[in-house]
Amino acid sequence: MATITKRRQLGRGVSIVGAGMSQFGAFANQTSRDLFVDAFQDMMDHLDHGVDVEDIETGYIGNYSSDLFEGQGHTAPIIADWLGMTPVPMTRIENACASSGSALREGIMAIASGMYDVVLVGGVEKMTSLPTEGVTEVLASAADNLYEVPAGLTFPGIFGALAKAHMDRYETNLDHLLKVGIKNHNNGALNPKAQFNTTIRSLMDRRVARAQQQGQAVPGWQDEMDFLNDPRSNPWIAWPLRLFDCAPITDGAACLLLVASDIANNFTDKPIRVAGIGQATGRPLHDADELTSLSAAKYASEQAYAMAGIRPDDVQLAEVHDCFTIAEIIATEDLGFFAPGDGARAVDEGRTARDGDRPINTSGGLKAKGHPVGASGVAQVIEVFHQLRGEAGPRQLPNPGLEVGLTHNVGGTGGTCVVNILRRE
Amino acid sequence: MATITKRRQLGRGVSIVGAGMSQFGAFANQTSRDLFVDAFQDMMDHLDHGVDVEDIETGYIGNYSSDLFEGQGHTAPIIADWLGMTPVPMTRIENACASSGSALREGIMAIASGMYDVVLVGGVEKMTSLPTEGVTEVLASAADNLYEVPAGLTFPGIFGALAKAHMDRYETNLDHLLKVGIKNHNNGALNPKAQFNTTIRSLMDRRVARAQQQGQAVPGWQDEMDFLNDPRSNPWIAWPLRLFDCAPITDGAACLLLVASDIANNFTDKPIRVAGIGQATGRPLHDADELTSLSAAKYASEQAYAMAGIRPDDVQLAEVHDCFTIAEIIATEDLGFFAPGDGARAVDEGRTARDGDRPINTSGGLKAKGHPVGASGVAQVIEVFHQLRGEAGPRQLPNPGLEVGLTHNVGGTGGTCVVNILRRE
Repeated sequence: MATITKRRQLGRGVSIVGAGMSQFGAFANQTSRDLFVDAFQDMMDHLDHGVDVEDIETGYIGNYSSDLFEGQGHTAPIIADWLGMTPVPMTRIENACASSGSALREGIMAIASGMYDVVLVGGVEKMTSLPTEGVTEVLASAADNLYEVPAGLTFPGIFGALAKAHMDRYETNLDHLLKVGIKNHNNGALNPKAQFNTTIRSLMDRRVARAQQQGQAVPGWQDEMDFLNDPRSNPWIAWPLRLFDCAPITDGAACLLLVASDIANNFTDKPIRVAGIGQATGRPLHDADELTSLSAAKYASEQAYAMAGIRPDDVQLAEVHDCFTIAEIIATEDLGFFAPGDGARAVDEGRTARDGDRPINTSGGLKAKGHPVGASGVAQVIEVFHQLRGEAGPRQLPNPGLEVGLTHNVGGTGGTCVVNILRRE
Repeated sequence: MATITKRRQLGRGVSIVGAGMSQFGAFANQTSRDLFVDAFQDMMDHLDHGVDVEDIETGYIGNYSSDLFEGQGHTAPIIADWLGMTPVPMTRIENACASSGSALREGIMAIASGMYDVVLVGGVEKMTSLPTEGVTEVLASAADNLYEVPAGLTFPGIFGALAKAHMDRYETNLDHLLKVGIKNHNNGALNPKAQFNTTIRSLMDRRVARAQQQGQAVPGWQDEMDFLNDPRSNPWIAWPLRLFDCAPITDGAACLLLVASDIANNFTDKPIRVAGIGQATGRPLHDADELTSLSAAKYASEQAYAMAGIRPDDVQLAEVHDCFTIAEIIATEDLGFFAPGDGARAVDEGRTARDGDRPINTSGGLKAKGHPVGASGVAQVIEVFHQLRGEAGPRQLPNPGLEVGLTHNVGGTGGTCVVNILRRE
């Protein structure tokens, strides 16, 4: 264990100077390469001082399984070709839903190694090419196919088990889970790139209006909790998780431009420094010591906090991996924001809302922004990048004094966790 | 183009201090994780001064498609678990058949970045879980599935096109191709880990003996060329390539232990230095400028030569990516060992044999040693490691003065190429 907790430092500082995202959603006519080109173009269009494609020296693409989703392996060179980036080295990184979190780590170390000054890091997933049951199978292959998948486990069931364990051990209840989703949809409604750019309240209102219009019985919903507790609008998926506890199936891509900090001012007046990084590997769930926390998240965040020289209380906003509502609650506990078992109460008290003392998933999170699995880790960083630079539009947090943000990206059930701490310079 | 040819240096030296391989072959009862454990145990058993698993700080696994071959994504944490390496970070790297070449590059940069001192790098592929036609389909997905696969291309056909182009442009003939296979089997016969631990001559002799035993007509073969020119023993696969022009389908794993050069002597008295690394990305074949060379191989080797401060003539042995016999001939030209078109004649003249002036694929190459695609890049490095340390057994090259070796690992048809230059310290 000594090696995991050792305080590590990059040999050279790394800063983020640009970010781009495709629209997140379901796009029948777009392949991974199309989506990535969209993200790259968005980044290039918004760079403060611009950059030539030829100046990018290497790149990393996080992608979970273009193999299974699209029948396309060896995705990195194909994307490089479509970006006009050949012959520079481009490599695909795969760690399930933490693929682009891990890709970012490689990009950071590539600069710190002294080999490169300007590096592209991105992620992409094209998921809607398969029907829902096919997507469920592909995602299940990120669990252990000897000991978990043959037992009938798919991810809603796995996270359902975590939710049940959390409910049994602490005072977490079904309402707490639903309130995570309400909050994240409230945030996603302010994010034009989000797959669900809408509040749950407005989904409810539309449903009521449609019933009235069609002369049907109007459901007697007074608020979102009524709507979410009605199995007609929020059916059970895997107890205790319902439809609105689950992140959607999404097509999308996201990318970042990293540079050595000593040249960051050539690219922007507002670089965002990589202050701490951490990655850890958890044992498969069937071998895990407990179900109410992910050990890899604790180890990864310890590394990142140590490198950045900060404590959890110093983090002013975080994007955490809410693939299911329970995952956000557990994340905020694993990261040390709240004591074990207090994550659910924090949601209830509004502490994780945009106007709370610890805003979580201001982007809408995976729940509302969408979860193209290989792109999510980088997309989280993009939200923190924009918030710290004061360019998050209608969902912008009060910016004066906003300096430190964190991202938490999970693969599988914590087989991989990547944590990054970003700081406004 | 300026960025690709820039001379780059690692911020910190990296050395290889240990290597291990599973047996290469077809193993119905072994999954990827079993194969990797075999390779890791082989490495641990042969480390000069030993190491504790707990001292390994991070790891990289090259793997092309456990997704499609075994229905298992997120392979890195599962392997980490089986090695007892959790919770340290472990990441899968995918660049088709260059996956572990790219994994090695990440391991090298992880040390050079200052983040880590002791890093595991490996590769694995379990291919025989599918029937041959299934393997062909999975490998074809490393080509472009919009522009190449729908045109009916699979890899034997693609490399057949390269062979035909080389024959048309230069004086390359079918015999040249066959002689690559004869040489590599001669080497593989001296490699106990090789899938085909046998010469073609002895395969022929066995076939003759069997015919005699069974009272059948005895083929009138005088030498290997007769055997290889007989369609009964060497059927056409994709003209001008025959069975013995193709590397086999293989299960296997390979791994290396990398450390910062400044501490290498704690691990061994014979560290092997990473003197130069290079990686480049080629356009898909349908967009390539020519068919008789792979641009990525040229760019990757230019980078590696520049970093190492050597010229092609300084390389004393090389393991090159002979997925098909023509690929070895083209590789030796792309790497600058021979002028374009002269690679075939060099084989004919015995220059690339073990007793030639430029030994190529002393391990048996992918052709005889076997080609578990995600493991091949690291397995190439293992051969050079053993040769430079004087521990290659019966296939050992004369060791006094043997100091510089090179590896050349290709993904797809040069979508990716990784070149490493290793030096005895």
